[in-house]
Amino acid sequence: MNKIAINTTKRTEFIDITSRIEKIVKESKVKEGLCVVFCPHTTAGLTINENADPTVQKDIIEHISELVSPGKNFLHSEGNSNAHIKSSLLGSSLNVIIDGGSLALGTWQGIYFYEFDGPRERQVYVQVIGKL
Amino acid sequence: MNKIAINTTKRTEFIDITSRIEKIVKESKVKEGLCVVFCPHTTAGLTINENADPTVQKDIIEHISELVSPGKNFLHSEGNSNAHIKSSLLGSSLNVIIDGGSLALGTWQGIYFYEFDGPRERQVYVQVIGKL
Amino acid sequence: MNKIAINTTKRTEFIDITSRIEKIVKESKVKEGLCVVFCPHTTAGLTINENADPTVQKDIIEHISELVSPGKNFLHSEGNSNAHIKSSLLGSSLNVIIDGGSLALGTWQGIYFYEFDGPRERQVYVQVIGKL
Repeated sequence: MNKIAINTTKRTEFIDITSRIEKIVKESKVKEGLCVVFCPHTTAGLTINENADPTVQKDIIEHISELVSPGKNFLHSEGNSNAHIKSSLLGSSLNVIIDGGSLALGTWQGIYFYEFDGPRERQVYVQVIGKL
Repeated sequence: MNKIAINTTKRTEFIDITSRIEKIVKESKVKEGLCVVFCPHTTAGLTINENADPTVQKDIIEHISELVSPGKNFLHSEGNSNAHIKSSLLGSSLNVIIDGGSLALGTWQGIYFYEFDGPRERQVYVQVIGKL
Repeated sequence: MNKIAINTTKRTEFIDITSRIEKIVKESKVKEGLCVVFCPHTTAGLTINENADPTVQKDIIEHISELVSPGKNFLHSEGNSNAHIKSSLLGSSLNVIIDGGSLALGTWQGIYFYEFDGPRERQVYVQVIGKL
């Protein structure tokens, strides 16, 4: 298993980790298989979305923050229940197929660490499975 | 890696791809393992849900479209931010376990390509991992 | 493939299945790989979230039930369309990396079966892939 260290700088943001994951896949020398990316935190998540126009990320962040508003009267006393709810909605792990030794992403896809309760020091775990 | 071509015909719809994925699993001859289904688009997704009563799909489509309404004032200029948001909420990939050479789905489960911004020509990537 | 039997006791609840999955991983003797957990039901799901303060689970259950309210006028006649919608939003499967023979979870993470339409008798499928 590989680990990626990430320092987030805002309460909520997208951090592009595509090239760091691609590097791990290349170094593994796996040609056909699967790359699993896992977020070991309960107030952050992972998502794949558009890597071109940055307004897409802003629209996603803004809309999901409206769906799960922090201002609500939650029971959990740390004031970050909205971040936990986003983590369950977005999910803790991603799969990307490895084909010909590379991540088989679509043209417009990037892999993002999605911070819901930053700024914090975070990690992402990466496992590569398959045939050399 | 295998590819499935899909032509969607509506702005938003479910396309049942279960039998096409089952066929790929059979042809792989893998008996015990994992089938990974991946959507390489950022305005579509994948989901597993009921394969019996078609009103379930209609209720899912309608409710998720209400949660992420297209009418809102988004920043992204292409007018499909709601489709990108749905893609992050629903997810870009699915796992199904392979057991005894078949997909280990529940009785009422089908695998669906979920179009959020059609009609378009789409693809799905399928990777089969495991023991022959 | 392994199966876990679960009896849920409420309409909506979290059931902690972490130790049962960890036991399956240990018995498999796989040291480096992937554990796939799959829910074969269309009115339940799986999620990873905080294992410490139980109010987090209550806040997640309550908020997601508000986002997908059962009181709405759905087409599907069984009265559980909200459970099907939650199933698509939360997802039918989870990946956890296996590292050093154990589940590579974060300190505060537990794996939960998430019942949306109980009480019912349920199952979870578990597949372990990797190197002994």
